[in-house]
Parts: sequence; C-alpha cells; structure tokens
Amino acid sequence: MADFDPTTHPHRRVNPLTGEHVLVSPHRTKRPWLGQTEPPQQSDLPEYDPKCYLCPGNTRAGGQANEKYEHTMVFENDYAAVLPPPGPAAPPAPHPLLTTEPVEGGCDVLCFHPRHDLTLARLGQADIIRIIDEWSNVYKKRGTQQGINYVQIFENKGAMMGCSNPHPHGQVWSLSAVPSLPATELANLKKYSRSTPPSDAPKGPLGRSCLLCDYVHFEVGVARDEGRVVVQNDHWVALVPWWAIWPFEIMLLPYKRHIPSIVHLTQAEKSAFAEILSQVTIRYDNLFSCSFAYSMGIHQRPTPPASDAIPEDQDEDNVAHLHLHFAPPLLRSASVRKFLVGFELMAEPQRDLTPEQAAARLRILPDVHYLNVQKFADASATEGVDAANS
Amino acid sequence: MADFDPTTHPHRRVNPLTGEHVLVSPHRTKRPWLGQTEPPQQSDLPEYDPKCYLCPGNTRAGGQANEKYEHTMVFENDYAAVLPPPGPAAPPAPHPLLTTEPVEGGCDVLCFHPRHDLTLARLGQADIIRIIDEWSNVYKKRGTQQGINYVQIFENKGAMMGCSNPHPHGQVWSLSAVPSLPATELANLKKYSRSTPPSDAPKGPLGRSCLLCDYVHFEVGVARDEGRVVVQNDHWVALVPWWAIWPFEIMLLPYKRHIPSIVHLTQAEKSAFAEILSQVTIRYDNLFSCSFAYSMGIHQRPTPPASDAIPEDQDEDNVAHLHLHFAPPLLRSASVRKFLVGFELMAEPQRDLTPEQAAARLRILPDVHYLNVQKFADASATEGVDAANS
Ligand SMILES: [Zn+2]
Ligand SMILES: [Zn+2]
Repeated sequence: MADFDPTTHPHRRVNPLTGEHVLVSPHRTKRPWLGQTEPPQQSDLPEYDPKCYLCPGNTRAGGQANEKYEHTMVFENDYAAVLPPPGPAAPPAPHPLLTTEPVEGGCDVLCFHPRHDLTLARLGQADIIRIIDEWSNVYKKRGTQQGINYVQIFENKGAMMGCSNPHPHGQVWSLSAVPSLPATELANLKKYSRSTPPSDAPKGPLGRSCLLCDYVHFEVGVARDEGRVVVQNDHWVALVPWWAIWPFEIMLLPYKRHIPSIVHLTQAEKSAFAEILSQVTIRYDNLFSCSFAYSMGIHQRPTPPASDAIPEDQDEDNVAHLHLHFAPPLLRSASVRKFLVGFELMAEPQRDLTPEQAAARLRILPDVHYLNVQKFADASATEGVDAANS
Repeated sequence: MADFDPTTHPHRRVNPLTGEHVLVSPHRTKRPWLGQTEPPQQSDLPEYDPKCYLCPGNTRAGGQANEKYEHTMVFENDYAAVLPPPGPAAPPAPHPLLTTEPVEGGCDVLCFHPRHDLTLARLGQADIIRIIDEWSNVYKKRGTQQGINYVQIFENKGAMMGCSNPHPHGQVWSLSAVPSLPATELANLKKYSRSTPPSDAPKGPLGRSCLLCDYVHFEVGVARDEGRVVVQNDHWVALVPWWAIWPFEIMLLPYKRHIPSIVHLTQAEKSAFAEILSQVTIRYDNLFSCSFAYSMGIHQRPTPPASDAIPEDQDEDNVAHLHLHFAPPLLRSASVRKFLVGFELMAEPQRDLTPEQAAARLRILPDVHYLNVQKFADASATEGVDAANS
C-alpha cells in the first residue's frame, strides 16, 4: 500500500470554524493543467453610466438622487431584507418545531468609488483605505444602534454571482439576530478558547487560546512552496484555508496579534489590510485575465464595543478574530464555473484541486493587474500574464 | 403595533434537522405576482442522441459500450470522486487543526430510462417504480459492501445546475464516511428521539419520538388552504418545509408510519412513492412551463440493515426517517434564478416568498404535464396552464 499522498488520495478535511467537512478528490486533477483558453477580457465599461443607479448624481429606484460623491457613498437600501425597529412581537408557535423569530435591522449600500468601470483590484491604496474607513463607520454606527446585535459587511461581485450592476459596491446588513454561520464560528472560537493547546501563537482576550491565531501562526510557518499562503505582509496574510470549499477560496486575516474587529486596527494594520485586499483582488483578476466574480464577507466581533470601559484584552466578546472570506465560483477559466449542487447540496461540499495546488497557482501570479500591464506594454502583456499563469 | 403577520414582517425560522436558520423577508414580495412571461418550452430533444454517452448502445468516455437497455441501467462512474478500497492510512496531522481523513467508496450512475428526451416528470408509474427498485438495489449492494458506511442517492437536473447531459439519470455516491449534512440530520433525529414531546404522531424505533413523524403529522393536519402541503396520497406527502431555503423547495416523505429507508417500503408505499414523485416533478415543470432544474437527494438510514436479526422497531439505527429534498433554483420564471451568494454565503440563507406562498402556488397547478396537455389540445394548452398559474 502506497503512503498517503494528498494530491492523489481522496480524503476529507474538517473546517474547525463550522465543524463541517469537505471531500477532496485530488486524483481527478491528474490531467494536465490547461490554463486559460480565452483572450484577456477588456474593460469595456464607461467611467460614468447615465443609467447606473450608483453613479454620482444619478437617481435611484426609490427616487432619491445620489450625491456627486468623490470617494465613497453610503445609503440605505430601498428594498432592504429587514425593516427598522420596532416590529411586532413573536406570534405563538403552532407547534414546537415551527417557531418564528421576528428580525429587525437595516441594509446599507456602500459605493466603493465614483468610477463605474473600476473594482477593488484597480483602486489605489488611498482609495481602499477610504473603503475600510467607511466599513468601520457603518460598523460603528449600525453596531451601536438600539436592537442591532450583528453587522455583516459583504461584497457580491459579478453577474455570475447574480450581481447585475458592475459599479464597485458592497453591502452591509445589520440585524437584531446573529446569523447562523457567524454564530457557529463564534461558538467554535469560544469553545476553542476554553481549551489549552500548547502553542506559541498570539493569544486572545484573557490570555486564552484563539483558534485562528493558532491556525494562522502555523500556516505562516510552513515553507512557502509547500503551504497554503498566497500573499503575506507585515500584519496580514491571505491563504487558501486547509478546509476550503471553493476552488480558489481565500481567507484573509491578521496574524501578528489577535484583532477582534476593524475598529481595533492600528493605522499600520489598516494600511496593510488595504495592501493585501489589493494584492488578493489583483491576483484573482490575473488568474483568468478577467474581472473575477466572488462573494466576500467580513467576520468579526458581531458589533463593536460600546465603550472603552473594558480593556481590549479583558473583554470576552473579543473572542472573535477578524477575518475575511472570499468565495469565488470560477474553476478553470473565465467561463468554467463550479456549481454547488447534487451531492454537495445533499451531503457535503467536494473539491478536486487541493487547497495547496490552488494556493500555488495564485502565488505565482503577477502583482500588477493585467489591464495595467497592457496599458504600458500593449500586446506583450498577454504573453506576460500567460507565462506566469502556466 | 400591528400583530405579527408572516406575509409582512421579516423573521427567522429554524430548521430542526440542521439547527440552521433562514431569514424570511416577505415584505419584498408585496408587488403583484407577474407569473411567467415566457412561452412554454418545447422539448426539442431527440428520443435517441448518437452523441449522448447515456443513450442505449453508445460508447462512454471510458471506452465501454452501454447495453441496449430497455428500462434502467447502472454503471460505475469512470471519474468517481472516491476510489475503491483499500486506500492508504491517514497521515500524521502537521497540526491538530489540520487533520486528514482518507475516504473510500464508489460512484454509480443510474440511467432512469432509455429515452433521451424524457424526465421523471414525463415517465409513467411503472417506469418510476423501476427506478425506485434500482435505487433499492444499489443502496443494498453498495450499503453492504465492506467499508461503506453511507450511500447518497441524488439527481442533479438541468444546465442551470451544471448538469450538461439532459438524458434522465441520477447518481449514487457510496462512502466510508457519513457526510456532514446527513450526519447533522441524523444527530438531530437521535437527539429528538430521546426527548418526550407529547404527540399522537407515529413513533420511531423503541417507541421513541421521531422529529419528522411529529413534524409531518402536524403538517398534514393543517387546513389545506393555509398550510405547506403541495400534494398528498395514502402514504406520502410533498410539502414546502417551514424552514425552506429555496423558493420552491420541497420535502417528500411518508407520514403514516416511521419508515427508515427505501428497503423498508411495502409494495403499497412504493407505489405511492412513485405516484408522488410523478406529481411533484409534473408540478415543477408546470410552474414555469419548462423542464424544471433541481438537485434532489434521498436521506435515509446511512446503509440498509445487514440482516433481519434485529426487528425493525427495535433497531436504534432505524432512527432515520426516509425523506427526499428537492432544491430548485428557479424563482419567478424559466430564466430568473436565485443565487445563494453574498449575505447567504457569509451569514445565512434568505428568502422573500414565504414557504406558505410557495406551497399555494405549487398546489393549484394541474396534475397533467403541460407537454402532454399540448399533445391533446394544441394551442389551447398554453391558456390552460396560464390560468392555473395565475
Ligand atoms: Zn469566518
Ligand atoms: Zn434530510
């Protein structure tokens, strides 16, 4: 019997944040990597689209006119999934298995930039820092409102993800309830904090262990060629997690110290965050020379601390470890997508390419966006991107 | 403050099989129902396609030729997600958070019918009973193989679900491990069986409570106009579960007695199963006058009993209650799909249409497939379907 080889033998990995497994079938990728077969996608979007409800000065469906904003813009969604408090009380359950929990809150839209044709991958450091500041503002404003117990910041990018408007923007949904996935992650972080694994990783509040501090401390210590790290800077690392479901899934998190939320970032940590957001989204676009589709979400403390009364390292609610998930559906080219269906919907997620293989592909991509390469080098750009991609 | 109205006020419902929530935003459906705007889809598929690797007599990618089968056909997938035993032992974990569990097993393909252009919705009772018999055969064969601890029967239908071949077929994946979702469901069924809620519903093994017996017993007792039942016969019921995620999600299960798996069905129960499978898939096709895309999966005892040594009602492994999940992505017409992205990937699933509203729409649809109506009535069929659909 051959020794176990993670690139040959089917196996399962467990996600300690959720307790769920992923089935890995690496033998199915034994065929040679073909790389992209499509020409690089050009950006044919105008800088301003008179019909876009997010462009500066245009009118939204609800009738309001957008400001002529120069950097970012936040407004409340006219078709929010939740309504502001107060709402009615819960009705009696007709059966113990059929309970109803009323939910209140608000949904905000955050435009990243006035330019209709840009994306995170094509914005500069200063612009991305403004977006992080805006995320912090909304998180603080919504998270301290009466009855709000959770703030979810996310971005849904690309027609493939059902996002019909290419104007760069994200959303923030603020709710009276902590949703299922972050609730599960927080419960597992809390459970882990009560355990005492030996580790020289940074610690969470009260000197307790942190699952993500321990995990990321291990990952940044793996030899770069063998591991799952895609890019790393002084404070942040982007990696394809051990338990990744999506072919090129990435988790982005700070690794030098335990950081509960975006409002806990120092200036240096915030700059490093902007830098790594740029590096990750540029690599994504460069992977298949297209504007890469994904859903991104920020997981952190459900709401920011209401005051400074409790020191950061003494506050049990700081058990959360700030991290971002990027879930992109593309598999082998700009048009070949992975569907989460069949066995994956009915049993458990499954992947062919291992997380290590995915990380290796993302790691060798250039740091410069393929559209910017072309600006300077015209035709030769295509070769440059292909070479790195092969 | 108005009283709580489930068709007006945002709320959460919990799925007791998984412990997960769904956010319901019914106020977003207050606009009038527009119904379909597309003409009924015709079936332009040939009865036999010389290029289809599932049609009788054709050659598959692996080089083998299909039998000239007259009813169903089963073969092992050439590109299986798992490989047959024996596999290597688990490697040592480089860190306690990075464990590897080798998985073994096999993947089978089950052709439902020789005709390339048919689907479950267009097959007769006798043909569907043959499919159920074939499911039972594979479940018994694979489920009693050395090292197999779980058998997942499923169907993935439609290009929208990434299924490129329209030839009617399903799959069966047999594994050494119980996958995450059924493992969670089984754990919750087991936990519930130790509780003692008062109920006059049928009981599981050892006279204990069954979560699904209790749930479905309640549902069939709700006044038909108000509830979630879509169709019901002597043994089976199809309903939009209280906690449904997909707009027109359906759960199909026996309600008269606790039935652990398809091999436990009596002849009458099997006939009723075939009947309701037909009724559900016909209604799905009639909803938007198209071949409706979905993923379907059978949840039951992980593997059949190895012998009759333990009486059915004394076997603790019979805590499973046979049920099918149908997860269809379509929302408002043959082309408007729901994407599970953004907030739903990062926080929790969300729906607009309530399960009760979805059940009402499915309930009033005709029992005759729209393509068969047209066969007899030509042009007038479209009106007939539209009227029922409005
Ligand atoms: Zn997370
Ligand atoms: Zn189930």
